Amino acid sequence: MNDLRSIKCEACKAGAPMATQEEINEFMPQLSGWDIIEHEGINQLRKTFTFKNFSKSLDFTNKIGAIAEEEHHHPSILTEWGKVTVTWWSHKIKGLHTNDFIMAVKSDDAAFDDK
Amino acid sequence: MNDLRSIKCEACKAGAPMATQEEINEFMPQLSGWDIIEHEGINQLRKTFTFKNFSKSLDFTNKIGAIAEEEHHHPSILTEWGKVTVTWWSHKIKGLHTNDFIMAVKSDDAAFDDK
Repeated sequence: MNDLRSIKCEACKAGAPMATQEEINEFMPQLSGWDIIEHEGINQLRKTFTFKNFSKSLDFTNKIGAIAEEEHHHPSILTEWGKVTVTWWSHKIKGLHTNDFIMAVKSDDAAFDDK
Repeated sequence: MNDLRSIKCEACKAGAPMATQEEINEFMPQLSGWDIIEHEGINQLRKTFTFKNFSKSLDFTNKIGAIAEEEHHHPSILTEWGKVTVTWWSHKIKGLHTNDFIMAVKSDDAAFDDK
């Protein structure tokens, strides 16, 4: 079993393989509350995290930003009063790479640390 | 003429008046690159600002966040690699209040300071 907390992001180049259905079936139970959504024909991982005000939302946005910079992999982050919606996907392959699931579990851990 | 840089935000309560068409016609030429879009039946002011990387985008998100906290009026902010989309509207009146135009011009000024 591939434990998302024990594998590392690798450079994702054009032509890198998308996560297989078998991998997705292994990864999803390791995540909490993430959905795979299709946006403009591209599969993406999305979750909305809730917070008690705008300032807490912005703090979390910055934590996600720090993780993104560290791994050189960047999500879209929608910051609103009391909630932050994080969306991960791999631009170069126009879909979901193992990296995206690793980043999702890192996001969950960042939110947990925040409680 | 109402100069957006000389008027201040006022507390926006449920039942406060939406910006009139006459006001909108005065305000829009004072803004740079903002569109009025309708989202789920609510008019909103939206603009996408571009930056050279993710870190610069996140810096701008934080500047907008600081302005929002200062004025107790909060937008949605979509942070992505190289761009930030800021959307202002007044939740309590489900539409555009003078405050939103004031916040839009403050956002333009924040981006200008960033160049």
